Amino acid sequence: MRIREVVVTPVAFPDPPLLNSAGVHQPWALRAIVELRCGDGLTGLGETYGDAPHLALLREAAGALVGLDPYDTNGLLRRIRSVLGGADAPDRHGLTGGSTPEKTVLRVLSPFEVACLDLQGQLAGRPVADLLGGRVRDRVPYAGYLFYKWAGPDPYGEALDPDGIVAQARAMVDAYGFRSLKLKGGVRPPGEEIDAIRALRDAFPDHPLRLDPNQAWTVETSTKVAAETEGLLEYLEDPTPGIPGMAEVARTAPMPLATNMVVVGTQDIPEGFGRRAVDVVLADHHYWGGLRRSVELAAICGTFGVGVSMHSNSHLGISLAAMTHLGAALPEMTYAADTHTPWQCGADVLAEPLEIEDGSVLVPERPGLGVRLDPDALARLHGNYLRCGIRERDDTGYMQTFDPDYEKRRPRW
Amino acid sequence: MRIREVVVTPVAFPDPPLLNSAGVHQPWALRAIVELRCGDGLTGLGETYGDAPHLALLREAAGALVGLDPYDTNGLLRRIRSVLGGADAPDRHGLTGGSTPEKTVLRVLSPFEVACLDLQGQLAGRPVADLLGGRVRDRVPYAGYLFYKWAGPDPYGEALDPDGIVAQARAMVDAYGFRSLKLKGGVRPPGEEIDAIRALRDAFPDHPLRLDPNQAWTVETSTKVAAETEGLLEYLEDPTPGIPGMAEVARTAPMPLATNMVVVGTQDIPEGFGRRAVDVVLADHHYWGGLRRSVELAAICGTFGVGVSMHSNSHLGISLAAMTHLGAALPEMTYAADTHTPWQCGADVLAEPLEIEDGSVLVPERPGLGVRLDPDALARLHGNYLRCGIRERDDTGYMQTFDPDYEKRRPRW
Repeated sequence: MRIREVVVTPVAFPDPPLLNSAGVHQPWALRAIVELRCGDGLTGLGETYGDAPHLALLREAAGALVGLDPYDTNGLLRRIRSVLGGADAPDRHGLTGGSTPEKTVLRVLSPFEVACLDLQGQLAGRPVADLLGGRVRDRVPYAGYLFYKWAGPDPYGEALDPDGIVAQARAMVDAYGFRSLKLKGGVRPPGEEIDAIRALRDAFPDHPLRLDPNQAWTVETSTKVAAETEGLLEYLEDPTPGIPGMAEVARTAPMPLATNMVVVGTQDIPEGFGRRAVDVVLADHHYWGGLRRSVELAAICGTFGVGVSMHSNSHLGISLAAMTHLGAALPEMTYAADTHTPWQCGADVLAEPLEIEDGSVLVPERPGLGVRLDPDALARLHGNYLRCGIRERDDTGYMQTFDPDYEKRRPRW
Repeated sequence: MRIREVVVTPVAFPDPPLLNSAGVHQPWALRAIVELRCGDGLTGLGETYGDAPHLALLREAAGALVGLDPYDTNGLLRRIRSVLGGADAPDRHGLTGGSTPEKTVLRVLSPFEVACLDLQGQLAGRPVADLLGGRVRDRVPYAGYLFYKWAGPDPYGEALDPDGIVAQARAMVDAYGFRSLKLKGGVRPPGEEIDAIRALRDAFPDHPLRLDPNQAWTVETSTKVAAETEGLLEYLEDPTPGIPGMAEVARTAPMPLATNMVVVGTQDIPEGFGRRAVDVVLADHHYWGGLRRSVELAAICGTFGVGVSMHSNSHLGISLAAMTHLGAALPEMTYAADTHTPWQCGADVLAEPLEIEDGSVLVPERPGLGVRLDPDALARLHGNYLRCGIRERDDTGYMQTFDPDYEKRRPRW
């Protein structure tokens, strides 16, 4: 069994004007859909970022994968490393700090590794979760992901104050049954965001709450906010830039600190864990190099007594399926995963998208990822891509079209 | 596909009088062979220690595994943990320091996990190496394992001085083509062992050499020996007891320090790696909890810039097959693995034992581990077990039958 054809299709889908510490989401989100075709209708699926520089590397890698055995993921990495050489493309999605050739390789590896596991599962007649050690849970819990936002094409309306955030949370919990909530912060002055957390606590007394200002705060502000939100948060995510800053905040913060910005690759682990800068790592197979490497990350976290949660960017159903299989197989993952799924308002490339019910996704039992492409939907979203005119994510630039004086500053407060 | 029957068979095979820092090998080595039978002739194989306390726990665990899906290795661990509760049996083979319930669980888990992967491979029609990420090498190199020894049932004769060790090495290299050599030290005074290393270097100028005194030396002696063997050793293994001692030796040792005695479980990694006490970990799936956990160990080592080699005890062909699949799939393993295979002088439970040629073992391409039990050989070695009268490894006690004044002392010099 060999890979005969590799198809990489960029797609775009409407994205609401979600605010964050770098600006605001553009009207279209980009992704790339990867198909590894082995003949006889056997196809493995993967999904990743769709920005132009990343897309160019995906296509470069794709050419080197014909003839590969889908079980040979070590060989997959070797081929990609060899083709990309020292290529180095930034990742504006993982918000993973400076880029390096190795980080680029792992980001390009990811969708192909997922697609290889999809193929392995189909060949073995087993779901991907089984290839990762078997389900430790039948449903993977996700957190409702709350954003300050403007009114947009989504049904949630504007949210710029605590009342707006609580209303958004209510709508999300009603629609999806989420049992934990995450607020994307770093948008309003810290005092307002603390007020929003207090309002959420009042409205949802039993929901674990998280706040993620994406490094918008200084060490001093972070320390102050952490003290003021004592007892309110299950974790505080990336309050301030850098491992030394996080370590300083962690010294006094009464709650765990989580990150998807300072420990974003194995190269960050010795210092990040050694300085006890983080208590929870948000795994993300899209930049950790796929599902098996995410399992290894969880094992490393477990070894050092660091918790595991899961990060998300705007994504479609293939990523949701991959995240769900991974979340199903990780004993170490004791937090609900992030997902942007509700913000995609039903856009997908799948024939039968996975559903979020009771705040969780049922782990597919069909072989592989357990999902099928809808060719018409793929063509439609590819058409969006061709027409939308956006080729790179640029939250800051888009914000500046509304406010020419806007500057991205981390920390801002 | 479910496990219908679990069979645990203790076996014994002749073992030469190999000397080490704890005494001398008894005339019989014990192992336990695990069979997971799924019906229709489908059986997964594993191999582990055969000491009475471990055997009792294996049998206790076995009763809880009927009905398990062989893909559900997470469930396997849960069942074993639940059955064993807080049971705690020492491991005299891994020489892994004090025992803990968690170390016991992982040691009991191992042969069943290997057998589950054997089953998964057979079900998928793929060798176990493919389930671990694919072969990065077609042949796994092993090191010739040299021992000070008395004359015994083996063809190698006595070896109690440098000439004897060189002659043994010559015979091993001639018979198996080993391209690297390891001397089990801690037996003769350190100066004599340095002389043996020098004699090996003269006789085998291109063979990487290792010396493993199994914690027989103080920090001072270790430091002195390390300085005197500068340029002679690819690594020095477990010269002295404990992580603090190893860290002290590592400060000045000109060669890497390796261990299978102070970093023997994830609980040892933060301190061991944090203090830079070791440069190379000898993985051993028999006590790290199986093959997938050994892959995770290698990933952890890679993350911290620590090398990976592989440890061995007296073992039969199922373990050699498992070690070979693991060694094939580990990009991080850049050292030849240890094996006692030559000392077993052909004893095995396999229909077609794997061969060591050119110092390496060809990775089986057949599905699963790629090996088959020989029921007659199994019965014969089980008969040995029933008759041999040995129920626990006790190198020290056996030495005392020859020298009543013998004391196990670590450090001794």
